[in-house]
Amino acid sequence: MSAVKSTASNNRTVPTREEIEAAHRRIKPYIHQTAVMTSQGIDEMIGAQVFFKCENLQKIGAFKARGAMNAVLTLSPDDLSKGVATHSSGNHAQALARAAKIMNTKSYIVMPRTSPEVKKRGVRGFDGEIFECEPTLTARESTLADVISKTGATEIHPFNNYAVIAGQATAAKELMEEVGKLDVIIAPVGGGGLLSGVSLAVEYFSPETTVIAAEPEGADDAFRSMQTGKIEPSQSNSIADGLLTSLGDKTFPIIRQRVKEVVTVSDDEIVAAMRLVWERLKVIVEPSGVVPLAAALKAKEKLKGKRVGIIFSGGNVDLERAFKLMFKGV
Amino acid sequence: MSAVKSTASNNRTVPTREEIEAAHRRIKPYIHQTAVMTSQGIDEMIGAQVFFKCENLQKIGAFKARGAMNAVLTLSPDDLSKGVATHSSGNHAQALARAAKIMNTKSYIVMPRTSPEVKKRGVRGFDGEIFECEPTLTARESTLADVISKTGATEIHPFNNYAVIAGQATAAKELMEEVGKLDVIIAPVGGGGLLSGVSLAVEYFSPETTVIAAEPEGADDAFRSMQTGKIEPSQSNSIADGLLTSLGDKTFPIIRQRVKEVVTVSDDEIVAAMRLVWERLKVIVEPSGVVPLAAALKAKEKLKGKRVGIIFSGGNVDLERAFKLMFKGV
Repeated sequence: MSAVKSTASNNRTVPTREEIEAAHRRIKPYIHQTAVMTSQGIDEMIGAQVFFKCENLQKIGAFKARGAMNAVLTLSPDDLSKGVATHSSGNHAQALARAAKIMNTKSYIVMPRTSPEVKKRGVRGFDGEIFECEPTLTARESTLADVISKTGATEIHPFNNYAVIAGQATAAKELMEEVGKLDVIIAPVGGGGLLSGVSLAVEYFSPETTVIAAEPEGADDAFRSMQTGKIEPSQSNSIADGLLTSLGDKTFPIIRQRVKEVVTVSDDEIVAAMRLVWERLKVIVEPSGVVPLAAALKAKEKLKGKRVGIIFSGGNVDLERAFKLMFKGV
Repeated sequence: MSAVKSTASNNRTVPTREEIEAAHRRIKPYIHQTAVMTSQGIDEMIGAQVFFKCENLQKIGAFKARGAMNAVLTLSPDDLSKGVATHSSGNHAQALARAAKIMNTKSYIVMPRTSPEVKKRGVRGFDGEIFECEPTLTARESTLADVISKTGATEIHPFNNYAVIAGQATAAKELMEEVGKLDVIIAPVGGGGLLSGVSLAVEYFSPETTVIAAEPEGADDAFRSMQTGKIEPSQSNSIADGLLTSLGDKTFPIIRQRVKEVVTVSDDEIVAAMRLVWERLKVIVEPSGVVPLAAALKAKEKLKGKRVGIIFSGGNVDLERAFKLMFKGV
């Protein structure tokens, strides 16, 4: 397909400005330019002008569609023909299966056998081939290695991959192109793929903008990593299930240099922010996706009078689970 | 304010093409051009290409912002200065209070004393003055007459008003301008303000498009009115609480001439459509607002292979109530 321009990309070093621009051109036909929403009520609560980039309305319901698409589109024709592989139980699995299907190649997805059936259906809906394994990191990694050695597929890591990072960067680039100068952008941090991308987009396209990371208190490894200067493990105790991983050796250096601050929020604050969004903005954002808004509400004195971009990273939440969180407590 | 062009409007006859165009120009600064969403999954379920016009994401969470704004903007300066009044317990009350506040005039809203507190807060949030009355039509009408005689305010009826109808028409005009030719547009019908507007917009801007009305089975007065040729009363028995009123003497003649068909759906079908939208499209649409999708799913054999516009009329639903409907049954 004509969109593949493997010569234009260099996925072995931190993405340049030109690489993020190329990523955006490359993936545009395959992703939504998602809506940017505003709410007078929320602006008044925070005392700032807030722009919500609705990646919950993105293809497959999360920004992950961007990075996976860019990674697949930058493979050489030979690599592309052998397919792509990853271990993921989340949105990246579906994003990668979708990107592979669009490019008419195979995707091999290693998932813990305990993954919810709905996630498996999502992957199979894009003809992804699922390999189940025990729910441990060791089992996931060895199963993936096995699949790759048998198929010759290329691993596309959910976040520790420069082509993925360049793809995620386009969410912030698009937001800034639409709404103009922002004083602050707040993005959630799990493995750091989105946050790295946002940081780079800000450096290249709006260096006067401050990047703030938002993280659950129960998985505050990024907060601790910024303090200690090395990648800290995550304790993984939060309802924000998309943010439980720790940073990678590609994402951490990018984030460490460019992110001003990490604001952590409790699960109760996450649930309150989720309910606020559903009620006021009438869009469904998953717990991980509202963490930046929860952080903005918590740290509002820092945002007073500013123009603030917030990335709603995804909307894939089981409705019944969300209901229980909102009305029966965390 | 410069947007007031009372000379350009004639609110005593069925809106012309020029009046709808003028209404659109007039209200544009005060409303959202709402997103149009699509879903491959829903397209496959219906076997058609479906475009969802998200008026649930409109100001005050419903298309009502359009009609009320147009009605207020077409008042003479003298009338405007005396304020506007209506009896409504729903989205129109808030839409009218908002329009009045924008134009720096008063709004007087007659509401049954049994109205939920959240609706009253919504009106007060736009400085609307609430007059409570007994929850009967007689009490509402006599209280409104009293308020009008004391204040000199102009009544802005929720649907039986040509300026309101011209405003609602802009939702369909905007949809067709964005997505191009549609074979069918499906709109919900309660009092018929939106459906009248959609019918006129189709007649003027896309006469080859068929208009289908969607209505709850338990409030199928429009269906019966089309059969008998006169305005039938509504039994008002449906969870779609925005669609319980019967047609008006201004809306019925417009609809009768132009609407091809009324499809009725059960409350179970409405709940299933609501859940589908929340899960697939990640947006919150109220029961009344998903009635057109429920109708499309029910009557899909008529839509096969067609380009179909569906108006999501509003998103103002109490979350806890919605969850009970979705997970505990109607």
